[in-house]
Amino acid sequence: MAAARARSGERRAEIVRAALEVIAERGYRGASLAAVAERVGLTQQGLLHHFPTKEALLVAVLEEHDQWDTGGGGGRDGWRLDLLEPLVEYNAMRPGIVQTFSALLGESVTEGHPAREFFTRRYTQVRAELAGVLRAEFGDRLPGGLTPEEAAPLVTAVLDGLQYQWLLDPDAVDMPAAFRGFLRLLGAR
Amino acid sequence: MAAARARSGERRAEIVRAALEVIAERGYRGASLAAVAERVGLTQQGLLHHFPTKEALLVAVLEEHDQWDTGGGGGRDGWRLDLLEPLVEYNAMRPGIVQTFSALLGESVTEGHPAREFFTRRYTQVRAELAGVLRAEFGDRLPGGLTPEEAAPLVTAVLDGLQYQWLLDPDAVDMPAAFRGFLRLLGAR
Repeated sequence: MAAARARSGERRAEIVRAALEVIAERGYRGASLAAVAERVGLTQQGLLHHFPTKEALLVAVLEEHDQWDTGGGGGRDGWRLDLLEPLVEYNAMRPGIVQTFSALLGESVTEGHPAREFFTRRYTQVRAELAGVLRAEFGDRLPGGLTPEEAAPLVTAVLDGLQYQWLLDPDAVDMPAAFRGFLRLLGAR
Repeated sequence: MAAARARSGERRAEIVRAALEVIAERGYRGASLAAVAERVGLTQQGLLHHFPTKEALLVAVLEEHDQWDTGGGGGRDGWRLDLLEPLVEYNAMRPGIVQTFSALLGESVTEGHPAREFFTRRYTQVRAELAGVLRAEFGDRLPGGLTPEEAAPLVTAVLDGLQYQWLLDPDAVDMPAAFRGFLRLLGAR
């Protein structure tokens, strides 16, 4: 039984990785369970055994979100200022996962999208955590003059906005260098 | 004949407006010509008379992009620093068009998306124009310490990134105020 559970867990992880790829290529609305099943060598029925609906599979993909923020500036243990720069450098080495994230974020603003609540909660939390670590480091004002609460949504906006420019034109946009410039501006570097 | 052309032009404009709405709601990949046709009271055949393919309709929508950057900071006459702040204020009053833009930008990073080339060209141009107006105003360094070429992709990233946070949670994110904070940081305000 334990071996069967382990095999099932491995298979689920494999399916989630395939779903991340398919979403990067087609977005969530453009993705099909058939395409994911084909990529892991399952029939659609076989896939439905692990994830009964497309939305259930998206939930599993979003639960993998920790890896979007780790290596890095965020994750289970919260955000750390000194790890923001390494996070952006790490992201610049994994365009696939950044593409999945950026495609899902873009879609999440459309009507009734199943990832909308996830992203809304995520940003509320990211802004609050960033404001907290900025306040712990700098007090009421950063060297550049902003309050931690003013700086937090801007840090988040720069991280996301640079990703779109970089994905569209990786040769024209040096994402880590651009982000370092922003940290200098904040006085957080 | 002139009257017929004018009627056809009006009908096309009406179809493009409907397409903007449908894309805001479902994204481009999730949008169907049938949904656009229904919204303007045409059959799908009637719609195909004006736009032979879904992609042709997207091109018409993207050509409307001038309105994304006008009222405001950009458009046919290029970007103006003193109009960036009014642009963001204007955008904060038209969530529908911002939603269409943000959904399309998000999708554009997926494989083979028909809007990808448009956005790639747009960002190349926006970064160059912004760097140009920043240089004309401040010379080689902005008061905050960045070069115009360092600042330009950050201005663009903040504009785009704040839009996602604001669309997801308009009560939590004061987009114009956040953008003014960023301009103060640059020393461009």
